[in-house]
Amino acid sequence: MKEKGNILIIGAGLCGSLLALRMAQRGYTIKLVEKRPDLRKIEQDAGRSINLALSDRGLKALRLAGVEDQAKELCIPMTGRMIHDKEGNTFLSPYSGREDEYINSISRPGLNMLLLDEAEKMPNVEIIFNKGCENVDLEKGSATFYDYETKERVTYSGDIVLGTDGAGSAVRKSLFEHKKFLFSFSQQWLTHGYKEITIPATEDGGYRTHKGALHIWPRGEDMLIALPNLDGSFTVTLFLPYANSDYGFDNLTTAEKVLEYFNKEYPDAVALMPNLVEEFFENPTGPLGTIKCSPWSSYGKTLVMGDAAHAIVPFYGQGMNASFEDVVVFDEVLDQHEGDWDTVFKAYENVRKKDTDAIADLAVDNFHEMKEHTASPLFQQKRKLEIAFETEFPTEYSSKYSLVTFNEDLSYHQAMTQGRAQDKAILNLLADGKLPDSMTLREKLEIVQKETQDILHDDEVAHNLS
Amino acid sequence: MKEKGNILIIGAGLCGSLLALRMAQRGYTIKLVEKRPDLRKIEQDAGRSINLALSDRGLKALRLAGVEDQAKELCIPMTGRMIHDKEGNTFLSPYSGREDEYINSISRPGLNMLLLDEAEKMPNVEIIFNKGCENVDLEKGSATFYDYETKERVTYSGDIVLGTDGAGSAVRKSLFEHKKFLFSFSQQWLTHGYKEITIPATEDGGYRTHKGALHIWPRGEDMLIALPNLDGSFTVTLFLPYANSDYGFDNLTTAEKVLEYFNKEYPDAVALMPNLVEEFFENPTGPLGTIKCSPWSSYGKTLVMGDAAHAIVPFYGQGMNASFEDVVVFDEVLDQHEGDWDTVFKAYENVRKKDTDAIADLAVDNFHEMKEHTASPLFQQKRKLEIAFETEFPTEYSSKYSLVTFNEDLSYHQAMTQGRAQDKAILNLLADGKLPDSMTLREKLEIVQKETQDILHDDEVAHNLS
Repeated sequence: MKEKGNILIIGAGLCGSLLALRMAQRGYTIKLVEKRPDLRKIEQDAGRSINLALSDRGLKALRLAGVEDQAKELCIPMTGRMIHDKEGNTFLSPYSGREDEYINSISRPGLNMLLLDEAEKMPNVEIIFNKGCENVDLEKGSATFYDYETKERVTYSGDIVLGTDGAGSAVRKSLFEHKKFLFSFSQQWLTHGYKEITIPATEDGGYRTHKGALHIWPRGEDMLIALPNLDGSFTVTLFLPYANSDYGFDNLTTAEKVLEYFNKEYPDAVALMPNLVEEFFENPTGPLGTIKCSPWSSYGKTLVMGDAAHAIVPFYGQGMNASFEDVVVFDEVLDQHEGDWDTVFKAYENVRKKDTDAIADLAVDNFHEMKEHTASPLFQQKRKLEIAFETEFPTEYSSKYSLVTFNEDLSYHQAMTQGRAQDKAILNLLADGKLPDSMTLREKLEIVQKETQDILHDDEVAHNLS
Repeated sequence: MKEKGNILIIGAGLCGSLLALRMAQRGYTIKLVEKRPDLRKIEQDAGRSINLALSDRGLKALRLAGVEDQAKELCIPMTGRMIHDKEGNTFLSPYSGREDEYINSISRPGLNMLLLDEAEKMPNVEIIFNKGCENVDLEKGSATFYDYETKERVTYSGDIVLGTDGAGSAVRKSLFEHKKFLFSFSQQWLTHGYKEITIPATEDGGYRTHKGALHIWPRGEDMLIALPNLDGSFTVTLFLPYANSDYGFDNLTTAEKVLEYFNKEYPDAVALMPNLVEEFFENPTGPLGTIKCSPWSSYGKTLVMGDAAHAIVPFYGQGMNASFEDVVVFDEVLDQHEGDWDTVFKAYENVRKKDTDAIADLAVDNFHEMKEHTASPLFQQKRKLEIAFETEFPTEYSSKYSLVTFNEDLSYHQAMTQGRAQDKAILNLLADGKLPDSMTLREKLEIVQKETQDILHDDEVAHNLS
C-alpha cells in the first residue's frame, strides 16, 4: 500500500471511525483522536441515545468500507410505525409497500465498537482516547488536545485535519471564531427536549410489545417513541416541551405529576415501564437542535464532516445515515480530485451541502408529522394510498419517506423536492375530493403524477422566471 | 410626568435613539449609551452607508414619536427603479401604480442627528458617548462598558436593558454565550460584498442623473445601485462577489482591472464617477449578512431590538424601516402589558419575530430579483401588469413590493405570504399564455386573484392537513 499522507481525524464516534477505516483503506496514515474513553472498555451511560435507525444510505456506506454484513448482525428490522392511540389501540403503518424496504434498529455503541475494531485492525490507523480537542490551528493543520488522564496538553498535526467531533464540535468552533473569513452558522433549537426510558425485556428475554416496528404514541404536542434492542428491551424516548405547556419538563418535577401525565397520555406504555419514575429523574433531559454552517473547510487544511458540519434532529432517523453518506460522497470526490485537498474540500461541500441542508429541514418537518399528523385522518388516507401505489406499482411510485430512506442513489435534495410536491398533490387531491373511490388505482396514480409535475413546474417558473 | 422606572439603552444608532425618545415620551428615565463618538461633533467616515430608503413603516414610527415632519425635510422621493442597461439605455420601473406610493432617500447620519437632538431635548434622557458595551449581566440587568477616552471600565444598570447595538451587538453576544438557556442563532453571509463610490454633484450643485429614482445597473451576478443625496451627489453601491468570478473583490486589485470592469459593465456610470478608482481603493469592502436569533430577551431584564435582533441585507430597503417598526410594535405591546417586563418582552417577540424573519427572507429574495430578474422579460411583463392593476384598480390590487413597502398596517409576514402567492400566480399565468392581450384588464385581475387564492389554499392544505 502506497504511503499517501497523514490525516488527523478528530472524533471517533460513528462518522469518525467509519471515515478512519475508509481513509486507511485508501492508503492514508490515520491518527484518530477521541475525547471520551474507549467505549469498548467502559460501562455505557444510561440515558444517552442507545439505539438508532440504520437504513439504506448508511448501509451503502458500510458496504463501501466492507463492514455491511457485520453491521447487519446487529440490526433489528422495523417494517413500519406502530401507532398507539390513547385507548391503547394500535395499528401498523408500513414504511413502504415494497417488502424489501424497512429500517433497522441498531445499537449505537455496538456499531461504534464494530467500526473501532475494524479501523484498529488496519496497520495505518492509530486510535488515541481521552484527549479532547481544544482548538485547531486552521492555517497550519494542527490541533491542541487536553489529556484527561495526564492533565497535559499535546499538539498533533496532519497534512489535513478532518473534524468529526459531533454536534458540539471544537473544530467547528475554531472555524466560527476565526476572523479571517466570513463563516455562516446556524443553531436552531426546538422548544422540546427529550428523555429516554427503558421497556425492559421479559424475564425470559422476550419483547414486551411488537418487536418489528418503530412504536409511536403521537399526542399533538408531545410524543413517545420506542425502538427495539437485541436484548429484548426497548429504548423509549419522550419528546416534550420544556415549558409553556400543561405538562413540560419544567413542571414534571414530582413522581406524582410524572405518573399523572404518563397515565393520562400513554397508559399502555406505562404498563411496560416498571422503572418509569426512577429513570425519569435519573436520566438527563437532552435538547434537540439543528446546526448548519459554511464553509465546511478552510485553507485546504481542515474540513468538518458528520454532525460537526450538519447536526439534525432525530425525527427522520437519518442523522447517522447522513453522516455515513458523507463518507461515501467524500470518497467519490476523492476519486476525482485526489492529490489536491483544497479542491477536494470545496468540491465535496459543493456537491454535499444542499443535501445535508435538505435532510435537516425534512427532519424538522417530520417532528410535526410524527407528533401531530400521524394521528390525522387526511394524513392516514394519504399514507394508505401511497402504500397501495407502492404495492401495486412498485417501480412507478415512491413516497417521500421511501425516496429519503430507501433510495440511496437519489440525493436528499432531490428526494425532498419530489417528495414535498407529491405530498402536496395527494393532500390537495384528497381534500378536494378528486380521488373518489370510483377511480381505479392506476387512474389515481396518473392524476397524482400529473398534479405533482404541475406543482414542480409552477415552482420552477416562479423561482427561475423561465 | 410620572416616574415609571429606569431603562438602560445600549446603542444610539437609528433604532436606539428613536426608542430612547419614545420611551422618554412614555415617562421612563433613559440612559442611552453609545460606543462611537457623538456623530454631531465629528466628520463622517467616507465609505459607510450614508443614505437609506425610508418608507411607510419607518414614517409611521417617526410619526408616533412626533418627528415625521422634521424627517421629511431630509427626504428625497424616489418613485421607481431607473434601470440602466449595458448600452446606457434607461427606463423607469415605478414602485407603484398609485401616485402617493414612493420611497425616500434619506441621510443616515442626518436622521440619526435629528433623533439624538430630539431625545436630548427630553429632561429624562441622558446620552453618553464613547463607551462600548463589553458584556451584559443578564440576570442583574447591568452592563459593563469600556470608556475609549479614560480607558476605564464602568457599569450601568437599569430596571431593564434594551440592546439596540446593531448587527455586531454585544448584548446579543451575551445572550449567545450565556449557557443557562438554549439560544437559537443564525448568521448567514452572502457570497457578495459591497463598496460605496460617489457620484458628486455638478459644479453648481445639481444632480448628474435623474434625481427622483433609485438607479440600478443589474448585471446578473453583479449590480450597481445609486441613491440621491440632498447636496446633489449620489451614493453608489457596488455589489460584487468576493471570489470565484471573472471580476470579484479578490481580483480587482489594480486601477487597470477596476476600470476594465466598470467600463465593460457600467460605462454610463463611469462617466459620472470622477473619483472611481481612488474611492474604490480607499473605501472599505463590507460584508452582507442576515442575523436571526431567539429568544430576544432573558430573565425579564434584557431585550435586543433592531439590527441587534434581526440584521438583514439591504435589498428591500427595509432594514431601518423594520427597526423603526420594532418601536411601534413595542409601544403597542407596552399599552397592553405595561408594568410586567417579562410579559412585555415575550409578547413582543411572539407578535414580532415572524415578521422580522419574513422581511429578512424577502430581502435576500430581492437581492436576486434586483441583480438578475429586473433585466428579465418575464419579470418586466409582470411588473407592467401589476402597475396597470395598481393604476386602474388602486383599492383592489397591491404588488408584493407595495404590500411590504407601502402597507404599514399589514405585517411583513402577511405581506410575504400574499405577495409570494401573487408573484407565483402572475408568473405562471404569463408563462402559460393565460393572460392574452384579448382579455380586459379587469378579466386579468380576476384570474390573477383566483389563481392567488388557489395557491394560498393549496399551501394551507399541504401545511396544515386541513
